[in-house]
Formats: sequence, structure tokens, C-alpha cells
Amino acid sequence: MYKVVLKATTMAHNLIKSVVTDGDLVVDATLGNGNDTIFLSGLTPNGKVYAFDIQDEAVVKFKKMIADENINNVEVINDGHENIDRYVHDKVKVIMFNLGYLPGADKSITTKKETTLIALEKSLELLMPGGLMTVAAYIGHDEGAKEAEAVLDLIKSLDSKKYSVMQISFLNRNNAPFLVVIEKNDNCRVNK
Amino acid sequence: MYKVVLKATTMAHNLIKSVVTDGDLVVDATLGNGNDTIFLSGLTPNGKVYAFDIQDEAVVKFKKMIADENINNVEVINDGHENIDRYVHDKVKVIMFNLGYLPGADKSITTKKETTLIALEKSLELLMPGGLMTVAAYIGHDEGAKEAEAVLDLIKSLDSKKYSVMQISFLNRNNAPFLVVIEKNDNCRVNK
Repeated sequence: MYKVVLKATTMAHNLIKSVVTDGDLVVDATLGNGNDTIFLSGLTPNGKVYAFDIQDEAVVKFKKMIADENINNVEVINDGHENIDRYVHDKVKVIMFNLGYLPGADKSITTKKETTLIALEKSLELLMPGGLMTVAAYIGHDEGAKEAEAVLDLIKSLDSKKYSVMQISFLNRNNAPFLVVIEKNDNCRVNK
Repeated sequence: MYKVVLKATTMAHNLIKSVVTDGDLVVDATLGNGNDTIFLSGLTPNGKVYAFDIQDEAVVKFKKMIADENINNVEVINDGHENIDRYVHDKVKVIMFNLGYLPGADKSITTKKETTLIALEKSLELLMPGGLMTVAAYIGHDEGAKEAEAVLDLIKSLDSKKYSVMQISFLNRNNAPFLVVIEKNDNCRVNK
């Protein structure tokens, strides 16, 4: 057997690994089942992960899990990611968004276009130069398709001097999620 | 300063590095200035790189360079990549295409839609399960735009059971090249 490399998660994780160093502050804007938070926590043992989720269920379950595992570099925040600026005051190296609903839970509770856009705009401000933001978006349900379109509109409008923006799409699968990766440029690159 | 990670070349090279092991046979379908061939040569010192280019200028220059550097795992083939099956008879791990014209040379000599499609189809057959094909396509010139469209049409039509297909686009830059990556699936994944 061989490893499958063309997966949105694998692509996002590999890019993030290439920029994070221990001690960095990072954000999981959508805790959900906690996979991305655990991944981030392992990359910066002496740093900190801020993990947001509006659903009590996800937060309670995850807090118990990290207590059991003695993981102590994660701050779990039971609030919507659109309020990220109330909790995160320093610049961060990475912010991950995994849009849609919590797998296995109430499918009517999904991230919503309006709050997602606010969260993305605030997150761009919080990102340090050389930092990355990743957004996995799902187009297989109605709310997801509208949200995905709004995310792409925002992304395309970003000044290419300030941000490099990449979209990864899976071409021969219907309704496959796509991944957007945004890199904040260093000021010293502006005139190059 | 920091390293820029969101570049088509960097993305292609990182994905290729994750699958190639020493001893593998690999192909650079478009030698050009030789950057990809040199990269591939370093990944498989005990394997072999087949490098194709129809332009004498590129071939002569590169042959001299590898002789000077004592690089002896590259077979340079002065023929169009549409004839790949005349020279490569074993399955290969990686095939790289960098479409367009040779930087710094005659811009009227570019890869062409018709021969590119033949080369891509033959290359898909030559790829081993778990192998990757990368195609960098440029839409900044007329011939390039037509070729890019034809490449995407081919790619989208591939059976998702046999191939995973990913497109990487740069959203906020006009006429930026895009990268397509195709992974050949293992037979044992078909029914999963």
C-alpha cells in the first residue's frame, strides 16, 4: 500500500507544519471533533492553541478529553469565532477553519455565511506576516454552497501585495470540499 | 524573513518528495531549463530520470551541464513528449509537465494542445499505483489558455475510482499558472 497524498486535510496539515515552530500561538476557529486542535497542539507544545466552538456538546467532550490526556496548551472557548478578537490579542501564526456542521451531531447547526465572514476578516487582521489561514469549505448542502461562494468572493478580493491566496479543488469528485489557503505577506516583499 | 510556501513549484515539489523513494523511475516531460529534472535526479540517485525536450538548444545545454556536474542518472531525450511510450517501457512513480515555452528562448515554440493531450494520456498509462503526475499550466498567452482548458477537460473526465485529481489555483493574481496533480489509485482502493 501507499499513502494517499491528495486529501484536503493532508494538504492543510503539511502546509501548516512547514510554518509553525514551537512557542507559536495558533487558532482552531472550528473545534468540532477536535482533530485540528490536537494536530495544532502537537506542533507548539510550548505555545498555545485557542479553539472556538459555539456548541456546548463539542466543548464539554473536548475539555474532558484533553484533561484525560494531560494536554495543557489548549484554551477552549465556548463562543462563536466571530468574537475571536475578544479572546485573542496577540498575532498568531496559523488559523484553521473547517466549515459546515459537527460530524455526527445536529446537522441543522452549521457555520453561517454572515458570522463566518466576520470571523475570516478579523482573523486576517490577527495573522502575523508569514502566517497561514486555512479554510475547508463544503458545497454539498445549501447553506454550505452559499457560504463557500461568499468565502471565495472575499478571498479573491484580497490585495495580492498583502496576501497570497491558493484554492485547492478536487476536480473529479462531486461536492468534494475545497481548501483555501491564505498566506500573509511580509511588508518587505511589497515592492519586490 | 520567512519562506513563501504558496508557490506552484513548491507545492509540486513537496508532494513529489512525499512519494518518491530512491531507485524509482521518474519522468520530466518538459526539460526546459532543467530545474525539475535536477530536482528529480536528487530524489532518486540510484533510479533514473527520463527528460524530454523537442528543442535542441535546451537539450545541448542541459547535457553539457550534467556532464560537468557528473550527474549520471538522467537520460535526456531529444524528442516530443507525445512519443514518451517509445522510450519509457517500465511503470514510473512521477511524471512532471511544465507547459508553455522555454524561459528566455523563442516564445513561438510552446507546448501545443494536441501533442500535450497525447502525452498526458500516455503518461497516465505509464504511472504506477501511488504515483503522481503534476501539470503546471499557464493561461497568460493564447495558446496556453487553449491548452489549459483542454488539460482541465481531460482531467475532469478521469474516473475517480482510478485517479484522484487536484487543482491548485492562485485566486488573487491575474494569469497566474495553475497546477494540476493526479494520483493514480491502487486497485485495492476501488471498492472501499
